Amino acid sequence: MTLPTTMRQLRSLVTADGTLELSLATVDVPEPAGHEVLVRIDAAPINPSDLGLLLAMADVESATASGPADDPVVRAPIAANVMAGLAPRVGESMPVGNEGAGVVVAAGDDPAAQALLGRTVAIIGGATYGQYRAVPATSCLELPDGTDPRDGASCFVNPLTALGMVETMRMEGHTALVHTAAASNLGQMLVKICLADDVPLVNVVRRPEQADLLRGLGAVHVCDSSSPTFLDDLTAALTATGATLAFDATGGGRLAGQILASMERAINARATEYSRYGSSVHKQVYIYGGLDRSPTEFQRNFGMAWGIGGWLLTPFLMKLGVPGMLRLRQRVVDELTTTFASHYTDEVSLAEALSLDAIRTYAKQATGQKFLIRPNAR
Amino acid sequence: MTLPTTMRQLRSLVTADGTLELSLATVDVPEPAGHEVLVRIDAAPINPSDLGLLLAMADVESATASGPADDPVVRAPIAANVMAGLAPRVGESMPVGNEGAGVVVAAGDDPAAQALLGRTVAIIGGATYGQYRAVPATSCLELPDGTDPRDGASCFVNPLTALGMVETMRMEGHTALVHTAAASNLGQMLVKICLADDVPLVNVVRRPEQADLLRGLGAVHVCDSSSPTFLDDLTAALTATGATLAFDATGGGRLAGQILASMERAINARATEYSRYGSSVHKQVYIYGGLDRSPTEFQRNFGMAWGIGGWLLTPFLMKLGVPGMLRLRQRVVDELTTTFASHYTDEVSLAEALSLDAIRTYAKQATGQKFLIRPNAR
Repeated sequence: MTLPTTMRQLRSLVTADGTLELSLATVDVPEPAGHEVLVRIDAAPINPSDLGLLLAMADVESATASGPADDPVVRAPIAANVMAGLAPRVGESMPVGNEGAGVVVAAGDDPAAQALLGRTVAIIGGATYGQYRAVPATSCLELPDGTDPRDGASCFVNPLTALGMVETMRMEGHTALVHTAAASNLGQMLVKICLADDVPLVNVVRRPEQADLLRGLGAVHVCDSSSPTFLDDLTAALTATGATLAFDATGGGRLAGQILASMERAINARATEYSRYGSSVHKQVYIYGGLDRSPTEFQRNFGMAWGIGGWLLTPFLMKLGVPGMLRLRQRVVDELTTTFASHYTDEVSLAEALSLDAIRTYAKQATGQKFLIRPNAR
Repeated sequence: MTLPTTMRQLRSLVTADGTLELSLATVDVPEPAGHEVLVRIDAAPINPSDLGLLLAMADVESATASGPADDPVVRAPIAANVMAGLAPRVGESMPVGNEGAGVVVAAGDDPAAQALLGRTVAIIGGATYGQYRAVPATSCLELPDGTDPRDGASCFVNPLTALGMVETMRMEGHTALVHTAAASNLGQMLVKICLADDVPLVNVVRRPEQADLLRGLGAVHVCDSSSPTFLDDLTAALTATGATLAFDATGGGRLAGQILASMERAINARATEYSRYGSSVHKQVYIYGGLDRSPTEFQRNFGMAWGIGGWLLTPFLMKLGVPGMLRLRQRVVDELTTTFASHYTDEVSLAEALSLDAIRTYAKQATGQKFLIRPNAR
């Protein structure tokens, strides 16, 4: 097989005048170094964690498109207060895409690289929204023969995040979990992991049909935040599970504080004496997403033993260490089409990923909607 | 000296119908057990941390008083949403007062207890708003001969909290501090500690005259939140000090989030490349007070490496361990009239502490205003 010398790669550029510019660049196909392999990217998901780099919080509703359909250029304005945080990337055309899967079509001289020739692998590390990507052989996750790259496209971000929540729970001494936006692809994985691992899980969803979906997977505790009895339902589920750790994908609004307050109510319901500073049981919410961009707001009505903080996959994996990470990766491969199966509503080419309709759809991060880019689809 | 058999003790009661009732009870003077001493309480401060138990978040502006001036009964309404959190204390008349100082007037048979007879000691552990208190000899902090009990009244809460902030900074790997409501008694102690220990400190105050007071003590970085340039001043001070840990006494409003965002700006100002999830430097705000009762609100514009949480002295001391605690206690004794000098604006008897004027004044927790109760003053 002869490889092309150039390829298409999706680029995101922020200009000094406050414009986001999305386009497809034509770049050289990289030559793998001795320890590297060249992966033909067959499938790469658009995860919420890709959107910050891709869209730079631009106003996509005001976006305009120009150029031919197979070589579009999209421009969208960026608010002035957002621009302040983007200064370090102004003027730099950046490749995008955290993860993907495909076939190794070339390899460096090292035996470990050569051994992967022809194999289907999953990769993480950026620039997966392009036709080819050179990566170190050691960073590839080798998939079983015959794996459809579409099944391997989301091997890292969602599976490791879901597994990371359970690992964090154990590392920090909690015994049960709360998860919000629980009907997401990631949320469904977490339901299956917790069932398998016997971890009590409280799922918070926003609509009745999402509750039905999770119950269909075997979820025991599902609380619908659109219900008038939500806070009582949540407190009852927290009392039943004893959960004192939550992972919140929404970030904004009052949900994080409501969870802490409900945890405190659940704890105090079992308390036998008055504690002037509230319970001494530490209650923690980690915010790992930003589905709700509004400010985070809470009453401090949950004692003094509490924390809210950011949670990000990469620092967690560094804390977990290499043996732990390898253990999690192996579990992902073993359960790729069961626990960690992903569902995509839209498969698009690189050019189609830059249609205004597509952008406005995935920018919404609606639960259930998920895009898969197929960079080598024609 | 013959001891009385009964004594007066301040009591706080929450009734089932949602009323706070403050009064002076007449109770038996306790008989010290073998390992205990009986302390005549000569001075006990009203700290912000006493107000939760004392006032139960009642509406003191609507309080009414009855009874004679030397035996007052004060009643104030408690809001229904506050009552929910007070259920475990309803109907229980509770003694109040976290700390105080006085003279050991009786002791149990144990030699350690006998050795303290006649000594001036500081104590912590509740019920110090009364004429006498029996405590284990081991929990007394022995003060040098001739110490005025008024100088020893606040040996624990403020000094150990201020020292605990610096210890927490070291334990959690930070190298500089931010402190809000920095002109308080505690804040002034912290300024002196940080100067002595060479810890860069950013003081946040709310009025220009408070900034002058702290600069008079030698404070280098003082930011006035009433200034139109506050956020820029804060960022500049954070850039100069590299502080990534803050202790916030206000709790409510936007200050905690503003501090995190300014920390992130200070960090990014030194960054050489764009990081899509913000800086990887962990930024932490501990809320240890609630001067601002409004909800806490923040934009999440400071990356993903951040935390906000409650901080309380007792759990911190348990984490520090006994040798560490003894080290801090010794420092308090050694520097009692210098670093840890407290200033009181009002000295009151037990009955005077229940005058409506006094209650409404100390309930405000205004910086600079501080009450000292002298339970044995006539």
